[in-house]
Amino acid sequence: MSNSTLNIIKIGGNVIDNDIQLEAFLEKFAAVPGKKILVHGGGKIATRIASELGVEAKMIDGRRITDEAMLDVVTMVYAGLTNKNIVAKLQKFGCDSIGLSGADANAIKAVKRPVRDVDYGFVGDILADSVNSLAIKKFLDAGFVPVFSAITHNGNGQLLNTNADTIASALAIAMSDHYEACLIYCFEKNGVLLDVNDENSVIENITAAEYVRYKDAGIISDGMIPKVENAFDAINKGVKTVYIGNASNLHLFQQRKFGTCLVNK
Amino acid sequence: MSNSTLNIIKIGGNVIDNDIQLEAFLEKFAAVPGKKILVHGGGKIATRIASELGVEAKMIDGRRITDEAMLDVVTMVYAGLTNKNIVAKLQKFGCDSIGLSGADANAIKAVKRPVRDVDYGFVGDILADSVNSLAIKKFLDAGFVPVFSAITHNGNGQLLNTNADTIASALAIAMSDHYEACLIYCFEKNGVLLDVNDENSVIENITAAEYVRYKDAGIISDGMIPKVENAFDAINKGVKTVYIGNASNLHLFQQRKFGTCLVNK
Repeated sequence: MSNSTLNIIKIGGNVIDNDIQLEAFLEKFAAVPGKKILVHGGGKIATRIASELGVEAKMIDGRRITDEAMLDVVTMVYAGLTNKNIVAKLQKFGCDSIGLSGADANAIKAVKRPVRDVDYGFVGDILADSVNSLAIKKFLDAGFVPVFSAITHNGNGQLLNTNADTIASALAIAMSDHYEACLIYCFEKNGVLLDVNDENSVIENITAAEYVRYKDAGIISDGMIPKVENAFDAINKGVKTVYIGNASNLHLFQQRKFGTCLVNK
Repeated sequence: MSNSTLNIIKIGGNVIDNDIQLEAFLEKFAAVPGKKILVHGGGKIATRIASELGVEAKMIDGRRITDEAMLDVVTMVYAGLTNKNIVAKLQKFGCDSIGLSGADANAIKAVKRPVRDVDYGFVGDILADSVNSLAIKKFLDAGFVPVFSAITHNGNGQLLNTNADTIASALAIAMSDHYEACLIYCFEKNGVLLDVNDENSVIENITAAEYVRYKDAGIISDGMIPKVENAFDAINKGVKTVYIGNASNLHLFQQRKFGTCLVNK
């Protein structure tokens, strides 16, 4: 294993939806030194475009149902409009990026989610050996910064819609074979908070044991639970550190003053 | 200069619009041995999506006027829907492709077409030094097959809509610094024809001098004139050979029985 660090940074839909916030974030991302990967979510543009095209957005349990028409919409928006505009902006900031889906370079394969109670349609689940870390390493070694949209493929010609958080986590785990991988989730809060109503109550460091105590005490609850559990899952599978923090604070990451740091100790 | 051959193959909109023809073509493209690049046009899908979104398609002198809304549509369709579906299909056929716009890896820069009589909007013209041949060579050396959509950027964060024939030609010229570049235009006719109504009347080989005689005699006329003149322009700028032929005959290219071969002699 190499000792060099690779930062995998995931940016969510709320920043994607705001041109000014997005550009400010991308300037900060471009300034992060060393090897790095950006993973971006979709934002509300896909929902708007789908609505304008008469494609109905269906949700079950917070998951988007992806029929053929919706797959076309998310492929257009995530892998086309959003991804290429991000890449063009990063080039402006001197960051030599390449926009990728999982189909490109066969980087991330997925399997269509099996139908049990619900048919999610063209939604891809990432298996343990789904990430082609050697192909991605080639891009990094050549000096390029991969920018992944949340579209994968099944290897048999079918594109699939895949959760961006999951892609970021799967990339970080797989790239841990070659790098000290650091996974950074950027979202709209300052980190994991002691008081959800106080953005200044960030828990700066948290271990798995401390997380269990916070959860049992009801301090970490609701939507933060799957986020933190996914993060510890990544750490258990080889990722060195995970940060969760506010996209607008990414410039503080270099001083390790960014959000909540989840560590394995 | 290396002596190895690089084939730059351009596929037009009419094949893109037909799923069955497109898949058959991609299987043939995947089977072409050696280093290669695919450049694809847009097809009618962008016009249909634009119409459904209420974005009006404006044309002046056969050129699409690209306002901001139309730029979003062509970025979605060319760089997203079409490009990623082509890449997924190529992966199925064992061709390790990566889908690119000109913004990715800063591969192709363009300048917004200057406004004279007409403001074409966000249309990019490719200058002589616009192609980043070293970046593209990195992908080829790593074993990847670049697949270019007809979207470029200006280096300052702005995407631009660019003619796919021009992109193919500019790529072939620039890559001639590193390879014996062969440029192959695939379209719906069998080649340059002696009789436009007889697909069996293909002119197999044609030099620049012979072209002038055919043109003066009225045998080569109309839409074929810019196509052939662009081809000879590429040859004058270092491209070794140019072929013009039918997409459905690409499997014959290996035997050099494909369409019309334009040579410099």
